[in-house]
Amino acid sequence: MTEYKRWTLAKHPSGVPSEDCFALESFTPDAPQDGQVLIRTHYFSLDPGMRGRLSGDSYAAGLKIGDTIESAGIGEIIASKSERFAVGDMVMGGLGWTQALTHPDRGLQKLDPALFDDKVAMTATIGVLGVPGLTAWFGLQDLGQPQAGETLLISSAAGPVGATCGQIGKTLGLSVIGIAGGADKCAYLTDLGFDAVIDYKAEDNLVNAIEAAAPDGVDIYFDNVGGEMLDAAILNMKPKGRIVVSGQVAEYNREKPVGIRQTTRFITHRLRMEGLVVYDYAKQFPKAQAAIAALIRDGKLAYKEDISDGIEHAPRAYATLFVGANFGRRLIKAT
Amino acid sequence: MTEYKRWTLAKHPSGVPSEDCFALESFTPDAPQDGQVLIRTHYFSLDPGMRGRLSGDSYAAGLKIGDTIESAGIGEIIASKSERFAVGDMVMGGLGWTQALTHPDRGLQKLDPALFDDKVAMTATIGVLGVPGLTAWFGLQDLGQPQAGETLLISSAAGPVGATCGQIGKTLGLSVIGIAGGADKCAYLTDLGFDAVIDYKAEDNLVNAIEAAAPDGVDIYFDNVGGEMLDAAILNMKPKGRIVVSGQVAEYNREKPVGIRQTTRFITHRLRMEGLVVYDYAKQFPKAQAAIAALIRDGKLAYKEDISDGIEHAPRAYATLFVGANFGRRLIKAT
Repeated sequence: MTEYKRWTLAKHPSGVPSEDCFALESFTPDAPQDGQVLIRTHYFSLDPGMRGRLSGDSYAAGLKIGDTIESAGIGEIIASKSERFAVGDMVMGGLGWTQALTHPDRGLQKLDPALFDDKVAMTATIGVLGVPGLTAWFGLQDLGQPQAGETLLISSAAGPVGATCGQIGKTLGLSVIGIAGGADKCAYLTDLGFDAVIDYKAEDNLVNAIEAAAPDGVDIYFDNVGGEMLDAAILNMKPKGRIVVSGQVAEYNREKPVGIRQTTRFITHRLRMEGLVVYDYAKQFPKAQAAIAALIRDGKLAYKEDISDGIEHAPRAYATLFVGANFGRRLIKAT
Repeated sequence: MTEYKRWTLAKHPSGVPSEDCFALESFTPDAPQDGQVLIRTHYFSLDPGMRGRLSGDSYAAGLKIGDTIESAGIGEIIASKSERFAVGDMVMGGLGWTQALTHPDRGLQKLDPALFDDKVAMTATIGVLGVPGLTAWFGLQDLGQPQAGETLLISSAAGPVGATCGQIGKTLGLSVIGIAGGADKCAYLTDLGFDAVIDYKAEDNLVNAIEAAAPDGVDIYFDNVGGEMLDAAILNMKPKGRIVVSGQVAEYNREKPVGIRQTTRFITHRLRMEGLVVYDYAKQFPKAQAAIAALIRDGKLAYKEDISDGIEHAPRAYATLFVGANFGRRLIKAT
């Protein structure tokens, strides 16, 4: 059979994962057995939230040395020993950083090509219609409990979760403030309809910058960052404010977590902070995906993909997610 | 008129409030005008949660130099220019650290002496039936969302909030673990029916100690302390665990707050943390007070008062609340 390439874990990273934490292997996938399929990957995703699983710490079920790096992906069935899938079917699932793989016929979603067009690309299934978009959808609506007229603050707002969250917020009648790094990202957020943007790289004092953008305070903070940015938001929350902990990208690469200082504010301002794992809403995914796709087709929700061509780029592109380069959904074309 | 004594703020404390932060004044209260009463204080409370208002920082409405220190109290009307109160009536309200005061006839609750007996003392109105007891009641039930069979962890468990919370937890079918400092307090909690106790002064590693007491994890953490203890609890929370932020006594006297490090756990374990201000439940107070009094009369809820005789003891007794001496409700007999 044909040889393919895949990235495996070479060593557990400490800090931002360097390239030598990953090994690019050539391999020949096993021929599918009964109930299995062989998938040729077209695209896979780079997920900052997966960082914890690379560390092999004692608290999270981590990857072992030699394991293929995990990610969402879309691919094509190129051999099948399953009645569920035929050669040529397009599927979405947890394919990993690999050009091909043998996979059980469970845990894969068949994609209907008729659902995709020039407005909704098939890659959206692992982006705005996948984990990032669904995280924004359920995090904002279930944990954020938004009411029209309220103020929503979002960190890492130009990333795929943040940008989707902000646009959903606008459709719900919220006033939306985004925090992002650099003029390009801020201009992008303004184009998306954000009411205000904060370029954290241009601000000395984030507490004051948020206060200037939201003088009456913040009702919902949708946090993708954590650490000092979360503390700065807490100091600007209105009484009964809700903090949605979607990501903590500032923490993932730290030897010791920084966390927050302002816990007393939880009492004085009756704050609520709640974490999100999107898979808890799995039964509601189809309905949410249909609603998100409708917003895209109505021109109310734009999404951005940043696609690198070639599996060899994955580790370098992954590392940039942690140094402020999270601008649109990062995907790899697995050629 | 007679001279009385009261404690006023002499300087804003930094750290544990030292005695020179308070000034003991002799004064003659103004004669009550129309709509006012003159109250002779019998007892007033010492509240760790009031600490923030002494600091005069920019975030909390603080006391000014010369203001009478705030607290709950019970007293007797000794002169009245109000149709609402007659001389001899007993009242409860925010009387402060003073032997007497002139007060508007609003914001005072008249106490019916028939409601009190050898099981429920009148002082309970500023303790187990007052802010500490109501904080335990609403914090556990509204924010904690307890289900029978779940595990409840409580810090500062021998204090008036914690001890009440644990006993209410037992009536709800919870497994209750208390954290307290010293063998006396731990023995007291065992007597109250706590399932397990952790003497934090005798433990090197609080994370491990909690894990040993709750090997399957904690569903509800009722936190009166904050800081490192809160972090240790977070590392032991079950998925979908609830953290009730009732007090942060470890933080109140710090120049810089310590806060928590483990915010990433909010994602991996879908945790919720929420702060409590008991006055938000004011409309439900009478019903809760009746239920708490019934538990006391049924022998299901014991409470402990630690009464110092003489207003001059207030500052010293107040400071001990922050160094682990919070054991029962601290009251001052205002003689």
